[in-house]
Amino acid sequence: MSANTFGSRFRVTTFGESHGEALGCVVDGVPSGMKLDLDSMLADLARRRPGTSAVTTARSEADAPEILSGVLDGVTTGTPVAIIFRNTNQRSGDYSDLQKMFRPGHADYAWQKKFGIRDVRGGGRTSGRETVARVAAGSIAKQILAARGITVRACAERIAGISAQTFDWSVCESNDVRCPDPVAAVRMRDAIVAAHHAGDSVGGVIYCEALNVPPGLGDPVFDKLDAMLAHAMLSIGGVKGIEFGAGFAAAEMRGSEHNDPILPGGRFATNHAGGILGGISNGDTVVFRCAVKPTASISLPQTTVDTDDAPANLQIIGRHDPCLVPRMIPVVEAMTAITLADFLL
Amino acid sequence: MSANTFGSRFRVTTFGESHGEALGCVVDGVPSGMKLDLDSMLADLARRRPGTSAVTTARSEADAPEILSGVLDGVTTGTPVAIIFRNTNQRSGDYSDLQKMFRPGHADYAWQKKFGIRDVRGGGRTSGRETVARVAAGSIAKQILAARGITVRACAERIAGISAQTFDWSVCESNDVRCPDPVAAVRMRDAIVAAHHAGDSVGGVIYCEALNVPPGLGDPVFDKLDAMLAHAMLSIGGVKGIEFGAGFAAAEMRGSEHNDPILPGGRFATNHAGGILGGISNGDTVVFRCAVKPTASISLPQTTVDTDDAPANLQIIGRHDPCLVPRMIPVVEAMTAITLADFLL
Amino acid sequence: MSANTFGSRFRVTTFGESHGEALGCVVDGVPSGMKLDLDSMLADLARRRPGTSAVTTARSEADAPEILSGVLDGVTTGTPVAIIFRNTNQRSGDYSDLQKMFRPGHADYAWQKKFGIRDVRGGGRTSGRETVARVAAGSIAKQILAARGITVRACAERIAGISAQTFDWSVCESNDVRCPDPVAAVRMRDAIVAAHHAGDSVGGVIYCEALNVPPGLGDPVFDKLDAMLAHAMLSIGGVKGIEFGAGFAAAEMRGSEHNDPILPGGRFATNHAGGILGGISNGDTVVFRCAVKPTASISLPQTTVDTDDAPANLQIIGRHDPCLVPRMIPVVEAMTAITLADFLL
Amino acid sequence: MSANTFGSRFRVTTFGESHGEALGCVVDGVPSGMKLDLDSMLADLARRRPGTSAVTTARSEADAPEILSGVLDGVTTGTPVAIIFRNTNQRSGDYSDLQKMFRPGHADYAWQKKFGIRDVRGGGRTSGRETVARVAAGSIAKQILAARGITVRACAERIAGISAQTFDWSVCESNDVRCPDPVAAVRMRDAIVAAHHAGDSVGGVIYCEALNVPPGLGDPVFDKLDAMLAHAMLSIGGVKGIEFGAGFAAAEMRGSEHNDPILPGGRFATNHAGGILGGISNGDTVVFRCAVKPTASISLPQTTVDTDDAPANLQIIGRHDPCLVPRMIPVVEAMTAITLADFLL
Repeated sequence: MSANTFGSRFRVTTFGESHGEALGCVVDGVPSGMKLDLDSMLADLARRRPGTSAVTTARSEADAPEILSGVLDGVTTGTPVAIIFRNTNQRSGDYSDLQKMFRPGHADYAWQKKFGIRDVRGGGRTSGRETVARVAAGSIAKQILAARGITVRACAERIAGISAQTFDWSVCESNDVRCPDPVAAVRMRDAIVAAHHAGDSVGGVIYCEALNVPPGLGDPVFDKLDAMLAHAMLSIGGVKGIEFGAGFAAAEMRGSEHNDPILPGGRFATNHAGGILGGISNGDTVVFRCAVKPTASISLPQTTVDTDDAPANLQIIGRHDPCLVPRMIPVVEAMTAITLADFLL
Repeated sequence: MSANTFGSRFRVTTFGESHGEALGCVVDGVPSGMKLDLDSMLADLARRRPGTSAVTTARSEADAPEILSGVLDGVTTGTPVAIIFRNTNQRSGDYSDLQKMFRPGHADYAWQKKFGIRDVRGGGRTSGRETVARVAAGSIAKQILAARGITVRACAERIAGISAQTFDWSVCESNDVRCPDPVAAVRMRDAIVAAHHAGDSVGGVIYCEALNVPPGLGDPVFDKLDAMLAHAMLSIGGVKGIEFGAGFAAAEMRGSEHNDPILPGGRFATNHAGGILGGISNGDTVVFRCAVKPTASISLPQTTVDTDDAPANLQIIGRHDPCLVPRMIPVVEAMTAITLADFLL
Repeated sequence: MSANTFGSRFRVTTFGESHGEALGCVVDGVPSGMKLDLDSMLADLARRRPGTSAVTTARSEADAPEILSGVLDGVTTGTPVAIIFRNTNQRSGDYSDLQKMFRPGHADYAWQKKFGIRDVRGGGRTSGRETVARVAAGSIAKQILAARGITVRACAERIAGISAQTFDWSVCESNDVRCPDPVAAVRMRDAIVAAHHAGDSVGGVIYCEALNVPPGLGDPVFDKLDAMLAHAMLSIGGVKGIEFGAGFAAAEMRGSEHNDPILPGGRFATNHAGGILGGISNGDTVVFRCAVKPTASISLPQTTVDTDDAPANLQIIGRHDPCLVPRMIPVVEAMTAITLADFLL
Repeated sequence: MSANTFGSRFRVTTFGESHGEALGCVVDGVPSGMKLDLDSMLADLARRRPGTSAVTTARSEADAPEILSGVLDGVTTGTPVAIIFRNTNQRSGDYSDLQKMFRPGHADYAWQKKFGIRDVRGGGRTSGRETVARVAAGSIAKQILAARGITVRACAERIAGISAQTFDWSVCESNDVRCPDPVAAVRMRDAIVAAHHAGDSVGGVIYCEALNVPPGLGDPVFDKLDAMLAHAMLSIGGVKGIEFGAGFAAAEMRGSEHNDPILPGGRFATNHAGGILGGISNGDTVVFRCAVKPTASISLPQTTVDTDDAPANLQIIGRHDPCLVPRMIPVVEAMTAITLADFLL
């Protein structure tokens, strides 16, 4: 497994297990002389942090970043920025039953086949907890983008079959599910809570956009901007699909309808392309959506096999988010920012 | 632009422009001692070749591969396999008008912004013609997979709003659109021809599956199997989205419904996961779908700007596929095979 | 600066500055299920540690490794192994004068030109202290090699113009300079101490060999085994040259003299090739030598310029090794082991 | 063997065997809009071409480059430049005896161990003929450097124990061995011819320098400029060592002697560092030397084993350079230019 690194110019390496000593990242390629805004990093980390609302797991982690290198008197030096997070709230006992059987919908079956070993405590390296390091690295990327006027933001467009009907970015962070429609937000939250009480989980769709992306980002042929973003998003556990601009709806359109007319001044009459043409940003807003599956860990009984390949009945007891969407939103933003920063530098 | 290489162990580099001297690929990492099946390569190339049916462009290319290295007496030597294709049927005159304006929905606007130069003749490097090299490389990958019992195949599931209602792989190659439903195939073909006559184009959805993929392919964390396949598919011009297994429909499901129950013997009761768990193949069939946009080059008049940023009206005269799906199918198979071979080796 | 990673399959990323919070490494690609021998790692670290003899700097660091991830109950899990070292003994005051001028023979002039910023405290990232992370990573590599019977070892062949006349590996670790000739060792030590008292420094030559390397390591064409070892060695600050087998003496030989006759059983009558033919290990002992320059930081007055480009006279006060060779030996071994492990896996 | 690519931003992939259909390279990362000077490329190729003097092999190859892509009307487009060379003068019959035994000092023993297959005809991929592709790629790199005022040049400093006593670059190309001392050049040529008549071969030392390299090239920590140049040089078959600036002589110096005093205006009083400090160019001339072993293929009888591991006596009949130095000089220049271009872009 030597695939813990993403990017080439802005390169992020993550490490650490859910229940080990610490998790963290090394970010290589951060320009020197940049004032690092720690508050902004803490804010993003708080958005990903569990235990903050009715719709997230009860496991509470401080998630306090410890910056070990690459920053001198608050300013980056151009050397690798290493950040670690100590694991503090570990209840390994919760996972003792899982030693004997495989969880449906979970990585552990495939992991066991690949490595012949697995860390059942909280999923080890496959745990969503790994994303704390991505959010920290993504915060640095966001600050690089912000200095160039680029903003990345994501929200919950759809959860448990309920869609946002209105779109107001300003309300996203004031509701538990990060939905731009405050009315739908309440219905989404209730649906999540209801599923949780039923021992079940729900999925949804995350909308993400990057504003003010300059034209020219992305490389033909294989490292197109959309190809790299797709790579980045599908590397997040639980994402099962991605579409850019009109996406799957584009498959239903005619060319005369789908082609975005070009207007003077680098503008477009529509944005079916999602801001990307031929794999290169065209100056319009970069737009994509991610399909998020329902959380695999549910407390309803499930059919599975044990480690001796005998049929077994599994009932998972532990602390899990009944819907991945709300806390995954800052992770989607982080990976988007990391991908864009990698092209920008 | 140093992004013309895909893969790390099985590494494909492509080069060449639509109207230059030749296109080709260098495939590094081909195991030594493998008998290369040239007929199989020619068959795949013929499936991608234009000018073979009512639904493809009239431009006819021989697409005869010339193997320059890496093969001795029909057997691979372990050194890089270089393959070239001469361009023979070039009508550069067709493209003279395009020097002055940008084509909506096409790469040239973004390309001009990035490189300050563009090869208008057939799109240069952004032309779908580049994919001839991918199909040749993919054929080698397919042969590596076949030796391990793995099969990759794709088909047209949906075109111009018409879906396959039945699924019979054996009929795919006997109709013009590569649809597994012969009745829908006729309707799809008619819809493409009608759009073409109207100066327009249509899109569709490609279904792809890989059979007998062993469990364990794919690397946590960033180079998950689905992340690499998404990267590979979105690197194909015209693909606007990808979904694995249940995909966007997974967003609507509950965990108890979406989780695939595990049965003894490495089997699963359902395959909502698309054969991938936690980014690693689980031994079930790998399944995904790609959204393909309608061809950008249409002959209806379009609103655009010229190279002086003044409003302009563009009418493209040239030879273009009115639907990308049929000829893209072998390209999707090729990129899938290349990605799987890269993980296998 | 996104070049803090070495290797592809066994991949080492280092981070941290001489006077920052901590230094460390992330080692990706460590096989799972390997019992990690911490004592062996501590032993290698102790060999690199300063303050242990008359010939090293007085700066004393505990250099206690803290393993944050990748190890569960003493056994590797296949996930990245992150190791950090806290900086404890920092006397930043020693470096205050260096803010105003450049040190001859030192990285800071070129660094300033490149980054426009430099961390004068102990050289920041260019400090030899960075190599503590390499030794930790190298210890893991050595254990991977040891499991296959491969041993890497290095020693001081020549220091301050004094050469070892006898060769007994068993005495290397019992003298201050790590020389295989105990008599020469004393003379070398005295020469170092004398140079130190004179405010000066001396250089030398490190001999390194890898025993029981199987034939077949190394990749034609660009990533030959010797090319990668040269890359690895020249990445160590202070190394100014490398030669394999007969090396520069080979330039004086005739082919009939230099060619190593091949004997049955995979043996060779001589080893002028240094165990490498055509970039691939041939089964014989891998042999090379590194030229090490005298330490740049000396306390004699030196001609330089200040940061305003005006002539200046510099007298460095600080704690520096008067000869880099003794403490560089474990670093050479570590980088050799890392390179070999990268090819082996 | 997936190691046929060198560089990351300016990335060169080579392919082809000595006696296959063709050899060539794909150069990715060439900036767009550059007028390609074909005459300059032909001149460099002519310098590497065999059969041009008394000191080279009689095998004569036209070595006519065929540019397949990346160039439109003589100007680069930013897409990969593919160049091929047809093999025309092949006498495979010369190599029939070599099927049965291994050549001392040659790659084929290690190659057989690694790949289980080898192309005996001219060494296949290990042949010096592979370097024709490097010279072509290097010519493009040289032109990129030239546009920034940087010059790379190399010469024969020492051959068969004879050293240049005077240094006049202008005479290098007017003698057969590319020596800057015309008197020594005659002695070197005579020594090569004598060795050849005796069925033997000789080695030598190549001096290389890069003028006007701006300060700041090279990346700490692992991809130092000298580390990358060492990697590049040791990737050339026959090079057994490299030293920068004072090199191995630095090991004998004191710091007060070796440190180059810094003068105002970015100048240095001496250049023991070879223009590189801490792995980063300091603005002074980059200087290094390569040790070249005597050609392995000699016609004197040699002790070896056959493919059944039985003792054998080998007498090689074929066409080989009795000294690698003269024709390797443009290869050293090419790899130096490629390495510098990779850092510059």
